[in-house]
Amino acid sequence: MAPSSTSYEKLEKRFGRLLALREAAGVLHWDASTMMPEGAISAEARSEQLAALGTVCHEILENSETSDLLDEAEGLNDLGAWQAANLREMRHMWRHATAVTSDLVEALSKASMACETKWRSARPESDYETIKPLLAEVLKLVKESATAKSEALKCSSYDALMDEYTPGLRQEIVDPIFSSIEAFLPDFLKSVLEKQAAAPKPLLPKGPFPQDQQQRLGKQLMAKLGFDFSQGRLDISLHPFSGGTPDDLRITTRYDEEDFTSGLMGILHETGHALYEKNLPEKWRRQPVGEARGMDVHESQSLLIEMQACRSKEFLTYAAPLMKAAFKSDGPEWEVDNLYKIYTTVKPGLIRVDADEVTYPAHVILRYNIERALIGDDMTLDDLPEVWNEGLERLLGLTPPDHATGCMQDIHWFDGAWGYFPSYSLGAMTAAQFFDAATTADSNILPAIAEGDFAPLYAWLAKNIHGLGSLYQTPELIERATGQALNGEIFKQHLQTRYLN
Amino acid sequence: MAPSSTSYEKLEKRFGRLLALREAAGVLHWDASTMMPEGAISAEARSEQLAALGTVCHEILENSETSDLLDEAEGLNDLGAWQAANLREMRHMWRHATAVTSDLVEALSKASMACETKWRSARPESDYETIKPLLAEVLKLVKESATAKSEALKCSSYDALMDEYTPGLRQEIVDPIFSSIEAFLPDFLKSVLEKQAAAPKPLLPKGPFPQDQQQRLGKQLMAKLGFDFSQGRLDISLHPFSGGTPDDLRITTRYDEEDFTSGLMGILHETGHALYEKNLPEKWRRQPVGEARGMDVHESQSLLIEMQACRSKEFLTYAAPLMKAAFKSDGPEWEVDNLYKIYTTVKPGLIRVDADEVTYPAHVILRYNIERALIGDDMTLDDLPEVWNEGLERLLGLTPPDHATGCMQDIHWFDGAWGYFPSYSLGAMTAAQFFDAATTADSNILPAIAEGDFAPLYAWLAKNIHGLGSLYQTPELIERATGQALNGEIFKQHLQTRYLN
Repeated sequence: MAPSSTSYEKLEKRFGRLLALREAAGVLHWDASTMMPEGAISAEARSEQLAALGTVCHEILENSETSDLLDEAEGLNDLGAWQAANLREMRHMWRHATAVTSDLVEALSKASMACETKWRSARPESDYETIKPLLAEVLKLVKESATAKSEALKCSSYDALMDEYTPGLRQEIVDPIFSSIEAFLPDFLKSVLEKQAAAPKPLLPKGPFPQDQQQRLGKQLMAKLGFDFSQGRLDISLHPFSGGTPDDLRITTRYDEEDFTSGLMGILHETGHALYEKNLPEKWRRQPVGEARGMDVHESQSLLIEMQACRSKEFLTYAAPLMKAAFKSDGPEWEVDNLYKIYTTVKPGLIRVDADEVTYPAHVILRYNIERALIGDDMTLDDLPEVWNEGLERLLGLTPPDHATGCMQDIHWFDGAWGYFPSYSLGAMTAAQFFDAATTADSNILPAIAEGDFAPLYAWLAKNIHGLGSLYQTPELIERATGQALNGEIFKQHLQTRYLN
Repeated sequence: MAPSSTSYEKLEKRFGRLLALREAAGVLHWDASTMMPEGAISAEARSEQLAALGTVCHEILENSETSDLLDEAEGLNDLGAWQAANLREMRHMWRHATAVTSDLVEALSKASMACETKWRSARPESDYETIKPLLAEVLKLVKESATAKSEALKCSSYDALMDEYTPGLRQEIVDPIFSSIEAFLPDFLKSVLEKQAAAPKPLLPKGPFPQDQQQRLGKQLMAKLGFDFSQGRLDISLHPFSGGTPDDLRITTRYDEEDFTSGLMGILHETGHALYEKNLPEKWRRQPVGEARGMDVHESQSLLIEMQACRSKEFLTYAAPLMKAAFKSDGPEWEVDNLYKIYTTVKPGLIRVDADEVTYPAHVILRYNIERALIGDDMTLDDLPEVWNEGLERLLGLTPPDHATGCMQDIHWFDGAWGYFPSYSLGAMTAAQFFDAATTADSNILPAIAEGDFAPLYAWLAKNIHGLGSLYQTPELIERATGQALNGEIFKQHLQTRYLN
């Protein structure tokens, strides 16, 4: 060890502790969704624990020594590229943290946990009136936080919220991309639906598909993708997610015994998230530069696996015999062309997480518009159900019969995650752009997937994305990997090719 | 809220956060033993997380503001009895924490986690040589910590270790009690074994007893005892324990499909621990005075349930028909007198956690002697296996065939818990003393248990122990509840009555 640590080394130690505490919070969140008993009193105690963790994390950043060390380290001129990027990410975390008070952080954490917990029981009942005051409290605190951060980051309140999930994301980036998709979608969707209506319907495999068989198949395919069960688990939760830590991956799914197809793709989707975490640079574990690069890139990794790789004919060629074996079934419904038809069926629906990739952006654009309006005080929570239903009618021609399948369907707002939704669709576009670049660079990627071999794909991902952590900021990462800035064009081409050609 | 907080109120806030962080660590420990994947890399990450938590907890105590607030609060003269006791307990935590440096705390936490993890794989292999260097590192750091604390607490190093688990416990208290038991045991054990040899052997119910049936029966009896599954869980781990938090109780057991009897009593034992936690004063959650009163009293609660209440003829009268139903079995082996014979069989054995209540103190005295010798540098870890085997031969006439059933059987030393074992046997004596006082005060307690009704027993426990948290120091708590100081006499009477009369 050096005789006396430099400011940079001291920062590494400090942020290492901070990120270990965030990992602890990650495990507690996973536990709350999978293992924690259902009593309200348990949830209250968990909320106290997470609030305390949030507070000490916040205090590490807000501590004046941290600020002094950052100032000092920014004057060093002998930092390597990774160290310099690490320092840049530390400063970014510091900006977010110091813009808001500890009290606000603690209050928001408690309000979110309380609201999320209540949502778990109110959602099945479509009970919007019960959840509304708790959501109002969350929204009030989110706005307070957004206002404070908008000053620190010199951007709008809504931009400040998006920046928490995808650093540097701004409405001026999102608006043109979403506008071009909004302009493209109606005619395209019409053509796809007409084409599908004219073709014979796919044959649906007949259930029931027992949960343990679905789970076994899911685990088999996870392992093929490179998921290591000595460093991770698959469990069940109401809202599937990828949690835990890079060295202890905890993904969840939910099973429908009548229809295995969506549960299986859910598992592959979360596996995409998990393998991004697993393959982050080990040398930089629990350092900001070693973390995943924002939520849009994270979502691009799950969608690249689910939408680009695993809904391909190549993957289904590999998976079809495994599915037949898992469910001890046979017949024409298990032929690859039929499975491909099932997995590329487009059908406007109420539920975002069940949406196909064509209608998905409509769900996100709905939420994006509502979020901006709520944050900008252009509407209130009293209006939410009505605005939601009107928006969905306009975008997809559907009206939810209840709030459970309407504005209460997603955990995110209730859990305090605002400004998060746009990253989902930006992730889909980023995924299309990455997969196009990967398969162009290595023409063996798709043929290998047809044999259940994901190694060529993961080699490209490791080199161009996973192994880079947060070394580059998102625009540079995308441009280096794909040769162009993020745009909606490759995504649109992908949809054209898959659904109309 | 008062216009400006007093020093005492500030301390409550500070310690509330500290204890919420310890609760978080409790959940992470439970997860590590039950859910965490087996890969070494997951365990390493967990060790980083727990070390970071330990460090921030330590820093809260060691912070100079905490010291100033304690000094100031100790000058207040308007504190209520609970507040004053809370302050006393805060000071006690502070003394332990400030006696050692953050670096030492962190090093010990990491070394313990690494050693415990390795122990999980080395123990089944009886591989003492592999674990020895990791144990040596733990022991070195434990000694360092004990030396520092002995100065702060003005007691011997070994006393300082015991004080962490049972505040105020000193060799001068333990030695006379253990001496009297050591003097009593040999002749008593001989008489019991002779008596049992002369009587017909109990009939053993024939397995297998499928794990799910054992678990169902266990949960049924847990519920009867008052365990609320909306605030707790029952899982499986290598070494059964009671963990989690008072509002989210996590107990574990292990099942032997050939013999349900010990797994079932294990569940009832941990339920005793868990219900003590659950019934601690809610008003003082996450405050030092609201916590359980030391490890000896904690163990007294598990042993009171297991040894005093549930191995009684009364409880077995209630449980026998439930056992028969659970295992769909019938016959003379399920008669109460036979079950009572099984549950009061005395047989010297190698494994502490499987020991009957007569031979159990011998296991503890063995460990007590070894611990003091290792801490006092009167022996080294090289000698451990031999000293262990010689000691067991002398005390119980047995020699372990391997280290797995010898000196590697318990998790505690490998996990950094030194000075902990004496509390087990002191707990047994405390349990006997409490149960005697309870059944004398309310003659309905045992008849109610025969009907599966634990309410009268829990009423006495709530009033005299559980609801008091850490209001009184242990000697005062015992004296108030039983009218006399802790001694071994009532325990010896209990053994006489149960095994020779």
